[in-house]
Amino acid sequence: MTSDAFPMIGVLGGMGPQAGVDLVAKITAETRASGDQDHLPVTLLSLPQIPDRTTWLADPSAPDPAPAIANGFFRLEAAGAGVAAMACNTAHTPALFDRVLDLLDDAGATISVLHLIEETVSGIAFEYPSARRVGILGTHGTLSSGTYHSVLERHGFDVIAPADLHRLTHAIYDADAGIKANSESIPAVTREEVLDAIQELNQQGADVVILGCTELPLAVRESAVDGLPVVDPARMLARSLIRAVDPQKLVVDLFASES
Amino acid sequence: MTSDAFPMIGVLGGMGPQAGVDLVAKITAETRASGDQDHLPVTLLSLPQIPDRTTWLADPSAPDPAPAIANGFFRLEAAGAGVAAMACNTAHTPALFDRVLDLLDDAGATISVLHLIEETVSGIAFEYPSARRVGILGTHGTLSSGTYHSVLERHGFDVIAPADLHRLTHAIYDADAGIKANSESIPAVTREEVLDAIQELNQQGADVVILGCTELPLAVRESAVDGLPVVDPARMLARSLIRAVDPQKLVVDLFASES
Repeated sequence: MTSDAFPMIGVLGGMGPQAGVDLVAKITAETRASGDQDHLPVTLLSLPQIPDRTTWLADPSAPDPAPAIANGFFRLEAAGAGVAAMACNTAHTPALFDRVLDLLDDAGATISVLHLIEETVSGIAFEYPSARRVGILGTHGTLSSGTYHSVLERHGFDVIAPADLHRLTHAIYDADAGIKANSESIPAVTREEVLDAIQELNQQGADVVILGCTELPLAVRESAVDGLPVVDPARMLARSLIRAVDPQKLVVDLFASES
Repeated sequence: MTSDAFPMIGVLGGMGPQAGVDLVAKITAETRASGDQDHLPVTLLSLPQIPDRTTWLADPSAPDPAPAIANGFFRLEAAGAGVAAMACNTAHTPALFDRVLDLLDDAGATISVLHLIEETVSGIAFEYPSARRVGILGTHGTLSSGTYHSVLERHGFDVIAPADLHRLTHAIYDADAGIKANSESIPAVTREEVLDAIQELNQQGADVVILGCTELPLAVRESAVDGLPVVDPARMLARSLIRAVDPQKLVVDLFASES
């Protein structure tokens, strides 16, 4: 193995496979580059056989994903990554993520693992310094775990969420019109459901809205809706990974990479 | 490092960064899966600092990409990959690719490196057994290297190309309307230029057309135009990588993954 021109970024993927690929694509998009050679070295390790996170959180007798996740970060470290992250919201639930860090720590790993939700919230604090009330959209599963709420509150934000998560869950999971079933081309009615939820949080006084589910940014690619900033956590995480290895490489304006 | 449930696929990326990410996305798309756990383990090593291939082919005193490419495949082998490939057309020019294989061979590497153009042509022979005349679209640089021509002719195909590559190069590179400058949303006029070139090859009697440039499939996502099959080499390569590790995992119908 030779040393790279820049420290290498690691991405642990497979949870699901497309979310890991998307995080790598966002690292490329958020890098200031005028040609291939200006980009940063990145390694993606996509391990779809990592046991399901949601299943284990609901039933601790199910296969435990923590050792497989820790092993993935070890392998990224062995491949040359100094800093790494994963795009899966559920894997950042403290009951799971903290155990991964403990396993890495016990084994003497030196790789730095960034936390999707911590980086999203600290990114909001940095990019939107006047924001006080943060709205959060996601599935019932993600929001009921309370991870976004507790991190936001620790950073001093007031947290608001839609009164009824049923419509949003429907927009994501519906077998016909849902985002998961139509990731290449989102039906207009589904996009409207997500926009309605953003509008509801706007009326409740949100200063920023987090799209707290990997599917939601597929329906709403804008960085603002009716003037309300809308945050894609994977994009914030991509920016944190770039900042960790070379802040000079970061697209300076949060919105500069948009057409 | 623990062993994976399936042999791991390696992708050497960074040439350019988006092409490597796209190849991983196509591996996911071409895998028969009803959930995350059905997908195959994949590792992407994106090394954008690999010296420019076109520059070196034009000027052998420029930095040589072959050692960096060979080193990348070594690192993929060390990361657990048994079979690997890269998405860059130019890197498969014999003057470069054969030296990469020699470097790997001399050093005792065991990783199997698939050849983008060989896999595309053998894929056409397999998927379109009645095809005789194959049309090829690409930049002047890719076509003048003759790699597609020589591989197609070795497989017994007649090769046809557009009479004038100027318009196609313009469709790819034009600073305003070109595909490279508009990869998220291709202008209609640019797509028409690519469709016209396909139509020209259709009139010349092509049985299949190869989109021999990573940008062209962004403008033409269909698998056929006016009944003429249109082949994306990266998609063929993704299918060969899957077939190499587990043929059972391959989406059976070449067109089944399309909506």
